[in-house]
Formats: sequence, C-alpha cells, structure tokens
Amino acid sequence: MIILNGGSSSGKSGIVRCLQAVLPDPWLALGCDSFVDTLPARMQASDRGIAFAADGEVTVGADFLELEAAWREGVATMARAGARIVIDDVFLSGAASQRRWRTALGDVPALWVGVRCASAIAAGREVARGDRVQGMAAAQALSVHEDVFYDLEVDTTHTESLDCARTIAARVA
Amino acid sequence: MIILNGGSSSGKSGIVRCLQAVLPDPWLALGCDSFVDTLPARMQASDRGIAFAADGEVTVGADFLELEAAWREGVATMARAGARIVIDDVFLSGAASQRRWRTALGDVPALWVGVRCASAIAAGREVARGDRVQGMAAAQALSVHEDVFYDLEVDTTHTESLDCARTIAARVA
Amino acid sequence: MIILNGGSSSGKSGIVRCLQAVLPDPWLALGCDSFVDTLPARMQASDRGIAFAADGEVTVGADFLELEAAWREGVATMARAGARIVIDDVFLSGAASQRRWRTALGDVPALWVGVRCASAIAAGREVARGDRVQGMAAAQALSVHEDVFYDLEVDTTHTESLDCARTIAARVA
Amino acid sequence: MIILNGGSSSGKSGIVRCLQAVLPDPWLALGCDSFVDTLPARMQASDRGIAFAADGEVTVGADFLELEAAWREGVATMARAGARIVIDDVFLSGAASQRRWRTALGDVPALWVGVRCASAIAAGREVARGDRVQGMAAAQALSVHEDVFYDLEVDTTHTESLDCARTIAARVA
Repeated sequence: MIILNGGSSSGKSGIVRCLQAVLPDPWLALGCDSFVDTLPARMQASDRGIAFAADGEVTVGADFLELEAAWREGVATMARAGARIVIDDVFLSGAASQRRWRTALGDVPALWVGVRCASAIAAGREVARGDRVQGMAAAQALSVHEDVFYDLEVDTTHTESLDCARTIAARVA
Repeated sequence: MIILNGGSSSGKSGIVRCLQAVLPDPWLALGCDSFVDTLPARMQASDRGIAFAADGEVTVGADFLELEAAWREGVATMARAGARIVIDDVFLSGAASQRRWRTALGDVPALWVGVRCASAIAAGREVARGDRVQGMAAAQALSVHEDVFYDLEVDTTHTESLDCARTIAARVA
Repeated sequence: MIILNGGSSSGKSGIVRCLQAVLPDPWLALGCDSFVDTLPARMQASDRGIAFAADGEVTVGADFLELEAAWREGVATMARAGARIVIDDVFLSGAASQRRWRTALGDVPALWVGVRCASAIAAGREVARGDRVQGMAAAQALSVHEDVFYDLEVDTTHTESLDCARTIAARVA
Repeated sequence: MIILNGGSSSGKSGIVRCLQAVLPDPWLALGCDSFVDTLPARMQASDRGIAFAADGEVTVGADFLELEAAWREGVATMARAGARIVIDDVFLSGAASQRRWRTALGDVPALWVGVRCASAIAAGREVARGDRVQGMAAAQALSVHEDVFYDLEVDTTHTESLDCARTIAARVA
C-alpha cells in the first residue's frame, strides 16, 4: 500500500495516475475525494458531514469521522485480500490522521509519502484548476504535514508528476 | 446493506441518490462505477481489465475479477464496521455475481433489490444520457436478472426514481 | 433553429441529446448551461453574474445579461452561417426572455418548443440528479412558461425524452 | 480577443482560467473543447466529424469543418457585440488554421498567443491527466505552431499557468 499525503492542489491526483501508469501491476486508486463522493449530497455541505468555508477552511463533523473510520477499515481489508492500493489523502489533523490510518492498517505494509508543494505555487494551481474553493491550497500546504512521518517525500514545486511517480515507484518494485 | 442490481441505464444511480436523500441516517453509495473509477486507465479498455465492445457488450478479465473480489471483501468490512451502505451493481454473471456478494458479505444483513426497466425504454434513456456505449442497456436489461433472488423489485419503466426509493426505504426503516 | 424552454430538471438536456441522435443532419447543441460554463468562476456566484440561492432561486446581474446578449447575437450568426442549432434555455423572465431571442434571431427561422414537467415530478428528478440546488425545479416549473408562445409543447411527466425528441423532429424534417 | 494556440496538454485551459481570474473585466472562455462538446455524440468518433486514433492522431472531416466555420463566425460576432473572449484552440493545420480565424475575425482586434511546452513534459502531463488519448501531446507539441504568427509566446515547461496568464494580461490592460 502507498499512502500519499499532501495539501489541496499539491498534485497528488496527478502522481496517482502516473503511478498507476508506471507500475507494472494494477493498483487501485482510492482517497479522500473518492470517499467524499460516496456521501449523501446533504453531508457534503453540513456540520455533521464536511463543510468548505469561503476562506478555504475545511471542517468535518461526527458523522463524517465515523463513516470515514469504517471506510478506512474496509480499505485495509482490500489490501489484506491482495489488492495493491494507492491512497491520496489530506491529513487535516496531521499526525492524528496518520495514527488513524496506522490503527486501521495494522500489519499491512505501507509506504508513507509526503507530497509537498510551495504554498504560493499550490495556490496558483488552485486558480488554474478552477473547481476548488480558493484558499484551501494555502491553508493546507504546511499544516497537513505537521509531525507526520514519511518514508519518502516528493516536491511538485519544480518536479513533474511523472518524475515524482517514478521516484516513488522505485521504492515499491 | 442495500444491494441494487439492474442493467445499464435502468435508473440505479438515480434511485441511490434518492435513497441517500430520503433515508434519515447517512448511507454510503458504492458500486460498480465507483470500482471501475479506481482502476488504472489502461485497465479500462483491456482484455485483463474491462472492455466495452461497440455493440454494448461488456467483458471483464482476470485482473478485474481478482481486484473486484478484494474490493468486495473491503466493502463487507465497511458494513461490519458500522457503515450503512447502498451498492448499485450490474450482475454481468447473473446468479453467479450474487453468490460472490453473498460469500463476501457472510453474516452482514442485506436487502436485495432488483431494478427492472423495459429494454426499449432503457435503450432510449441510454441515448438521452449520451455518455454510454449504445447497446449496453438492451444487452443487459434481462440477462443481469437471470436466476437472481430479490427481497424486492422495482420497475423504473413507469415509476420515478424517488418513488422507487421510497418503496425501498420503507423496507429498511 | 430549435429553441427548447423549460424549468430546471424538466428534461431538456436529454431531449437535446435524443434530437441530435434522431435528426439525420448534424445539429449543434448550445444553451444556458454551456453559456454559464464560459463565464469566469468568480461570476458563477456573484451579484453581477449569476447566483443560486439556497432555496433554488436564481438571480442574474448586469454583467451576465450584457455578456449573454452578445453570446445570443453570436449564436444567431452561427445559424445564419449555416449551422443547425438546438438551444436549451430557461426563460427566467418568461416572455421577456423570448423577446430577447426574437430580437437576436431576426429573420432566422425558429421552432419554439415548450418543455413542461409537473412540478412535483421535476422536483423528484432534481433529487435523483444530485448535482443541482434543491428547489430550482419547483421554482421554475411554471414561471418560465408565462406568456411564452410555442409552436409545439412536450411534457416529460409521462413521456420519455426520446419520444419527445421524435415529436419535435417530425416538425423539422 | 485573446487567442491561445498550443498542443494538447500544453496547459492552455489552466492559463485560460487564470486569465479569467486576473483580468479585472469578465472574459468569456471558448475553445475547441467547448465546440466539440456541442457536436452530436455520433460525430465525436466519426470520419465526417472528429476521430481520435489510438496513437493520438486527430482527424477532422467535412461536417466538422463546416460547422466549425459557422461557429467561428458566431464567436467573431460575440466579440463585435462587446464580449471580451479568450479562445483556446489547437491549430491542427498550423498557419491554415490561423488564416481561418483571421478571415472570421475581420477587423476584430486579436492578441495571438503561442503556448509552448516541451514535448516530453506535455506527454508526462497527459499521463497525469488520465483522460486523454496518449500520444496527442507529443504529436501536436511542434506541429500546431508551424508558420503561425504570434504577438506573444509563453512556455509552460518551467513556468506556472498563473505566471503565463499574468504575462498575457499585461499585454491586454
């Protein structure tokens, strides 16, 4: 299992698609975006679910955390059942988010990858994407990495997604 | 857990969104489309993955089946961990597809729902959607239901998604 | 030129795709959604652009109306230059919206089509779509048709998109 | 009017969204992708419409060219009617594509911008996007610029979309 953690617009999804292309075996891609997509529409803008403030702050509520915990258990089971999985996540609670994954994964081996991007560059890419609340990239660029342990870090500020993916893939083969 | 089975363009996704809206508790929506989205791009048009023929026939290969089995185990774990889950699937192998779910689910209680739609109507809705290979709706309208057992059947030919969802929800509450 | 007018979730887009499929010549599909997509992101939630209230009310501002007028002129030119065009629009100002189109079109022949759908049914389909502000369907179901003149009306309450499209196509051939 | 020309995955769309964000006036974004979206589904994979070969080659047929010419006339009318418009296009026929735009535009003032990206980098970004036929980026990286005249060129190989947009915007203000 490969777990990428990085702020919004740091380039995680691009790296995931490149990893799926360069790794010879088939890897499933899952992550916080695919989890949010499974939620009822009413939870995607609610106190008990997930809410995106106009300034880019993201808050999650009790129902979100409970369902996410169950989802994480399920992802760990998929890995134990033989699926290779690459996760892209945003550790909104930094080290605490990582601990939740560690608990769920138990003995499933994981490669922890930090995806960094200079805050100003990520904020510019957020504008270029056009479909994200402005401010998330800057708000998350540093905070999601606080006290998180990595096997490997990549930085998309000056490195292309495909090159980052090759660096990661070299650690998996 | 609620498991909907029906052919392409029979109206499963609409029913799922309505179920998420009318059920008071939050339910996660997962299904064959969300599984296919997790696959590497190269498997989405390949012999070992999933292939869509020009006439609407869908074939799945060894890698697809193996990863799908692991994914199904994971979904069962999510349910055991407390998540309410509604699945929409296309039982390409009819009763054999259902058996695979039963094995994965074990003792997890499930409500089996058949989603029917007259073949000609489903084919027309496939045209109206515009983003599907023409022919899938007709090819699957009957075959996916062969020898499948249901607790409940709904038919979208003359019934709206929201009404179908209310019928199903009444069996869950 | 074919101009469809109807409230949100009345089924216009499905009819457009069916029209493009059943009409032997190639027809371009344009409409209010494609126009909104051309706007700067910041205008898609602003007083001067277009704003969607939580209750489903839609308001448009000065910049929106000015750019839309220029866009309408351009669409009329496309038709004069030989393109067959089907428009799907929401006449937020009823008869006044139709007058704006008439002025822009001048001598370009147009088939005016009203797309009706019972308010409660459209509201249910809005839930099933899951990507629209709830309330738009009900708010617009009747108001967009006020004092509008039609050559032809279709009603998606009990009629499939493809059948509506065939009825319209019969008037064009 | 601003007209961007560049190969697939050279970064045009990101620059367009940044231009819309940094330019104080509202600009409409139109381009080859939005034109293709208006076509009937059957023309999006056909000899008379547009076809994407497995190796990334793109060919367009008679119906496509005829409708595109009418569309181009309409876009010119929108500009004459007062709309500020930024176009992103792929000049599949190089200088001949530019001539077609010049003829349609007549006296409408235009800023011609070349968007370059090193072929290998564009090919890598094509992998990272995941939704494009592999090979288009490399096939188009140089050919679309052949004998085309520009007022300004930007290169996304080492420059962010937002910085490219600022360079272009400085020429418009």
